[in-house]
Amino acid sequence: MNTSVRDVEIYDGEKLCDLERNGLKLIQNPSVFCFGTDAVLLSSFAKVKKDEKTVDLCTGSGIVPLLLYAKTEGRDFRGVEIHSGVAGMARRSAELNGLSEYVKIICGDIRSIENFVPPGTIDVVTANPPYIPNGAGITNEISEKAIARHEIMCSLDDVVRAAAVLLRRLGRFYLVHRPHRLSEIFETLNRYSFEPKILRFVHPFAEKPPELVLIRADKNGGRFLKAEPPLVIYDADGKYTAETRAIYGK
Amino acid sequence: MNTSVRDVEIYDGEKLCDLERNGLKLIQNPSVFCFGTDAVLLSSFAKVKKDEKTVDLCTGSGIVPLLLYAKTEGRDFRGVEIHSGVAGMARRSAELNGLSEYVKIICGDIRSIENFVPPGTIDVVTANPPYIPNGAGITNEISEKAIARHEIMCSLDDVVRAAAVLLRRLGRFYLVHRPHRLSEIFETLNRYSFEPKILRFVHPFAEKPPELVLIRADKNGGRFLKAEPPLVIYDADGKYTAETRAIYGK
Repeated sequence: MNTSVRDVEIYDGEKLCDLERNGLKLIQNPSVFCFGTDAVLLSSFAKVKKDEKTVDLCTGSGIVPLLLYAKTEGRDFRGVEIHSGVAGMARRSAELNGLSEYVKIICGDIRSIENFVPPGTIDVVTANPPYIPNGAGITNEISEKAIARHEIMCSLDDVVRAAAVLLRRLGRFYLVHRPHRLSEIFETLNRYSFEPKILRFVHPFAEKPPELVLIRADKNGGRFLKAEPPLVIYDADGKYTAETRAIYGK
Repeated sequence: MNTSVRDVEIYDGEKLCDLERNGLKLIQNPSVFCFGTDAVLLSSFAKVKKDEKTVDLCTGSGIVPLLLYAKTEGRDFRGVEIHSGVAGMARRSAELNGLSEYVKIICGDIRSIENFVPPGTIDVVTANPPYIPNGAGITNEISEKAIARHEIMCSLDDVVRAAAVLLRRLGRFYLVHRPHRLSEIFETLNRYSFEPKILRFVHPFAEKPPELVLIRADKNGGRFLKAEPPLVIYDADGKYTAETRAIYGK
């Protein structure tokens, strides 16, 4: 039986999650996909200034624009999600937090992003796209879950192309992805006239290989990459490091 | 006044350095260039199997092939150096250690590497090339010192091209360079059909940005980059970490 919070419907199978940041709540459907560390890290890595316009590609539950609203002075966020059910859920989350005016969810295919957002008008694009190349691993069915994890509806190329279409000159593209695809990521960025400007590896422990990479690439940017100190999630005792705690607002 | 050690001449201004590895000695000329951490790290990062042929580009004092002789089972090392005086010094170092049979120094320009080494015959190429793009910074005179630091006689493109000419299919290219040039490095590797396979950042301290990057790229290799744990040089007390001590053989 559906319930409702502040007149916003919560459907069967969905659950309400406390983002522990400015009292923000997020509607999620655990059978589809739950947000992970990557979305939270991306929302701390990305910087949005006052009056800047931001688009989050493959927004899913809408967690990235919601957290960016809380963490930055930006007030114009749009999230693009291809799956209408998931987009509706993200829209209800924005409504539930009273942020529908600042976080707008667009249901659409990023492969035709120019139909939804005027090209060259955006200052910041964020993306936490599917990591798994299509064809790799098991994709039994084209479910919402598979769409979120595999590059079925949007390849790395699609995401970078959409960012290139949206951004103004020197607009900033913030991406979280897997380190093992770094060479392909750089090549794709380069193909769409992006220059990687900041790179940060995310390591579960200080002495382990990175499992995520955070990248800022600027459209038509000049050559000079700032590689940052490692971001380490857990200390030797398996507890969050001070930096992770700050990111999670704990 | 020149001196001699084991019948090898040491010229005025040169000094003999103990590499603290299998009793190896190295002749250096401090007024020209002294080997740094980067050369030592490169020689530990690079793997050479028995019977594999190795060429070190921009070899300078010849430290990389000498250390690789000590650290690996490889017995066929060639170092290429453009400056005849520096090449002669490297050759005397090989002789001094009784390794002239295994470490051969070629005086030549890597831009015409095909004149010195048959193309496609090498298994491993190493390079600790000049880091500073030509035109950047101050290069008052075309000295040996400037050649070692600035891309006067060999650009990044020259180095990668030479590696591509030398290596057999799936041959391995080990490079140490500056992180801020990573995007250009990947682009150049890609242009010469190299695929980055291993990447490791070198941080002076655990919480500082990396100052060096170690890269293995394979000629015609498949896509999959293994990003490694950070290599940290000093602990919080400013002492070498256990890993650095192991690399330096201390």
